[in-house]
Order: sequence, then structure tokens, then C-alpha cells
Amino acid sequence: MTRRQLLRSAWIGAAAPALLGQNKMHAVKALLFDVFGTVVDWRGSIVEEGNAWERKRGVRVDWARFADQWRDGYMPSMDKVRKGEMPWTNLDHLNRALLEDLLKEFHFEGLSEEEKDHWNRVWHRLKPWPDSVAGLARLKKKYTIGPLSNGNVSLLTDMAKQAGLPWDLILSAELARHYKPDREAYLTAVSLLELKPDEVMMCAAHSIDLIAARACGLRTGFIHRPAEFGLARKADDAKAGDFDVVSADLLDFASKLGA
Amino acid sequence: MTRRQLLRSAWIGAAAPALLGQNKMHAVKALLFDVFGTVVDWRGSIVEEGNAWERKRGVRVDWARFADQWRDGYMPSMDKVRKGEMPWTNLDHLNRALLEDLLKEFHFEGLSEEEKDHWNRVWHRLKPWPDSVAGLARLKKKYTIGPLSNGNVSLLTDMAKQAGLPWDLILSAELARHYKPDREAYLTAVSLLELKPDEVMMCAAHSIDLIAARACGLRTGFIHRPAEFGLARKADDAKAGDFDVVSADLLDFASKLGA
Repeated sequence: MTRRQLLRSAWIGAAAPALLGQNKMHAVKALLFDVFGTVVDWRGSIVEEGNAWERKRGVRVDWARFADQWRDGYMPSMDKVRKGEMPWTNLDHLNRALLEDLLKEFHFEGLSEEEKDHWNRVWHRLKPWPDSVAGLARLKKKYTIGPLSNGNVSLLTDMAKQAGLPWDLILSAELARHYKPDREAYLTAVSLLELKPDEVMMCAAHSIDLIAARACGLRTGFIHRPAEFGLARKADDAKAGDFDVVSADLLDFASKLGA
Repeated sequence: MTRRQLLRSAWIGAAAPALLGQNKMHAVKALLFDVFGTVVDWRGSIVEEGNAWERKRGVRVDWARFADQWRDGYMPSMDKVRKGEMPWTNLDHLNRALLEDLLKEFHFEGLSEEEKDHWNRVWHRLKPWPDSVAGLARLKKKYTIGPLSNGNVSLLTDMAKQAGLPWDLILSAELARHYKPDREAYLTAVSLLELKPDEVMMCAAHSIDLIAARACGLRTGFIHRPAEFGLARKADDAKAGDFDVVSADLLDFASKLGA
């Protein structure tokens, strides 16, 4: 049984979605958002910066594959931290180590230290999906909103500043020194908000994140992002009833929450 | 020698302000603000809520003395935590314990649990000084800005939402589980920003806060708030050269930083 299947079976045993009536939703005071894929288009943004670099510097790289491989690389890195095989290391530092290997593999060489740092910070400059800023602005009027991402605090702060994401506060796995889906990541955020788990909703385009949040007692909101992986891979999917709210994008999500 | 005198003498021995030229200021990327007294008028806000309560409920209390005594009470409470005589306890919880004694002392009794909680959250509803929001909005265009307060994360988040403080992120002593002026409070914030200490400026109306931040390598900005204690007590004072920037209010501070 894979880890994913294991989590799915744990979920099937948990509170049936049908039991979570609309009245339960009234208690929700804060919404926490996964960021990479849910709020920002990491793949499209990296490809865009790559293309600009290609035009300027003549480097030819398959930027979509470059982006996919970088993203695929950080999961095992985080897992090493989660299993205690590596001391706590934030995402900027994990990404920087991965970048060194990627640059070699893609024959994208001869960058100065400053240029490497600039490339590593492409994750600080990711662009939002077209509906993200407007959806969050509506939700912010009714709820306290913040990211709860595996991205580190400074990455999320820079991203919000550049993309105009109207967060009320920046929450991150870094504050717990535990990556999602570790329980500590969710429960530290809930505790800093001085709320009970069921007063907080985790909102993400990835079931694995929501299933872990639900196991900690949080409410769950799914946001479809069918284009997250381009044509490379099918994006995650959910149907009505799988989570407390299942929505097509952040505007639809805001409407479903009455915001 | 009092603790304050001790800190002052440490400061006199530190880098002379004259050595910190304007060119050093160019490296500053983030501004961290003390909040109570520096950005918001805690005393005036508590008196205002008290007066409204008095009109509605006929309770007669010397609200200015009530506010002063509450504020005076939390310093010894924080010191107990700082000295390890009490486990980590956030400011909301310290304030709640102090409130129980205050209510008795001021014969302000018969409140329900819900009303006590509402009163305790007056600290979440403090109003900004008239220049605060406009000054911060100007500074935000040039710098990353956030509070670095002994107030807890949820207190600071609620305050920002209600008062319209345009923070980029919420930093708090709570994230270090060490109250200012402990070194950990400043250095944890610097580390979460992924900056060096001299790329961060601590901004406050209180010398003791700035002296402690300077000892950790941070830049320092003083903001005069002569009305912080009303007529009850002289507010803290500084003259040009005492800190990297010494300003009359947040608009003057923004101008002095070229924002």
C-alpha cells in the first residue's frame, strides 16, 4: 500500500462528509491556503522566466521539464526532513541544493552566485492564477486568511508583496519546523490563530493536504486547478462531498462560502 | 544599577551613532515595529472603550488608571516568563490573568465569561495613532514591514485587520517563545526574514527595545510618542544621533527613510 493509499483509507474511515452540514461552516473563522499550485501557477511562472532568460542569454532548456523536475525534487527532500534524516532546513535552502543538480543536468551552466540566487528566488516571484487575487480579496472581508505552505516565511512574504496576495498574516510549515502533511504543521498554525481546529479551514488543490488537515480536525476546501501540471500529468480531482467545500476556482470557492 | 541603566551603559559602549552613515541605511530591507505605544494608542483606546461601557452599563471606573495598571502589570508577568519562572504563556493569556485582579480592584464586577473575554480582547482592537496607517503605507512601498511585538500572533492579526495596518507579515515574540528584550525575539524574526541583522531596522517609541535590538546587530529607528502615557508619565525621549533614525511620528519617519 502506498503512503497515499494509506492516507486515503484513513480518510474513508473518518467523519463522512455528508455529516458536515452548512451550519458547521458557520464556526469557521480562518482560511489557510496551500500556495504552490493552489494560489500560484509555479509551472507557468518558471517557464515564463525561463523563456525570458532564453531570449536574453540564448540558453536553450526544456523549461517545463526543468520546472517539473525541480518540483518533483523537493518532495523527497522534504521527506528526508520529515523523517529526521536531515535537520530542519527551509524550502529556500532545499531548493538551492536541488538547483545545483538541475543546472548541471540541463547543461544550464556558468551562472554566477548572484544569478543562481536570483534563479532560486523564482519561487518568491511565482504568479497567481487569474482568479486568485480577486477571490482572496472577497474572502478576506469575511475571514482571516493566510497561506499555510511548505514555502518558508520570507518566500511567502516576497510572493505576496509581488503578486498582491492580500493575506492577513503569513503562516508556514517553517513556524512548526515540520513540513506538511505532518500534524505539527497544521496544529501550530491553529494554535497561533488561537482557534479550535474546526474553526479553521485548510484550502488546497491537493487531496493529500486536505486529508491530513482533516485528520487534525480542520475543515477542508478543495479548489480545482486542472492546469497545475500542464499536459505533463493529470491534476488532482475531487467531487462534491469529498470535502466540506469543493470548488472550481477561488471565485467559485468565495461564492460557496458566501463571501 | 537598574536593568535599564545597565542596558544604557551597554549602549554607550556600543558603536557610536555617528559612525552609522546614510550609506549603511541602504542595506536595510525590512522594518520591524513595536506596536503598543509606537503604532497604536493603547491607553486612549482602552479609555474610549471604558467610557462607552460606562455610558451603556453605568459602571464608574477611572479608565486611564485601569489602562495604566493593566499595562504596568504585564511587564512583571512577561519578566516571569523571561526568567523561566513561568512556562511560555502568550500575552492574551497573561492579560487575562491580570484582568481578573483588575476587575476586583476596580469593583468592575459581575461580568460574564463572554464579557471578560471581550474585555481581554480590547488589546486586539487598539486604535492606531492618526499618522500610523499613512506612514506604514508609504514605508511598505520601499520595505518589507511587519510588527515585532510582545503581543501574540492572533492579537496582532486581529488588530491589523480592524485598524487597517498594512503589514506584509505578522512577526511576534510568540514565534520565538521569548519576550522582547530577549535576544531570541529579535534574532528569530531576522532569521525568518532570511536577512542579516543589519538589513533589518527595529522601530519603536521605547529606547529599551531599540538598545536591545542594536545589541543583536539590528538598525534602530526611534519614533516619538509623547502622548503614550497621557499626563500620567513622561514618555520616552531621544535626540538626533541616539539611534540611526530619530523621528517625530511615522510620517516623519517615512520621510527620513526616503519613503
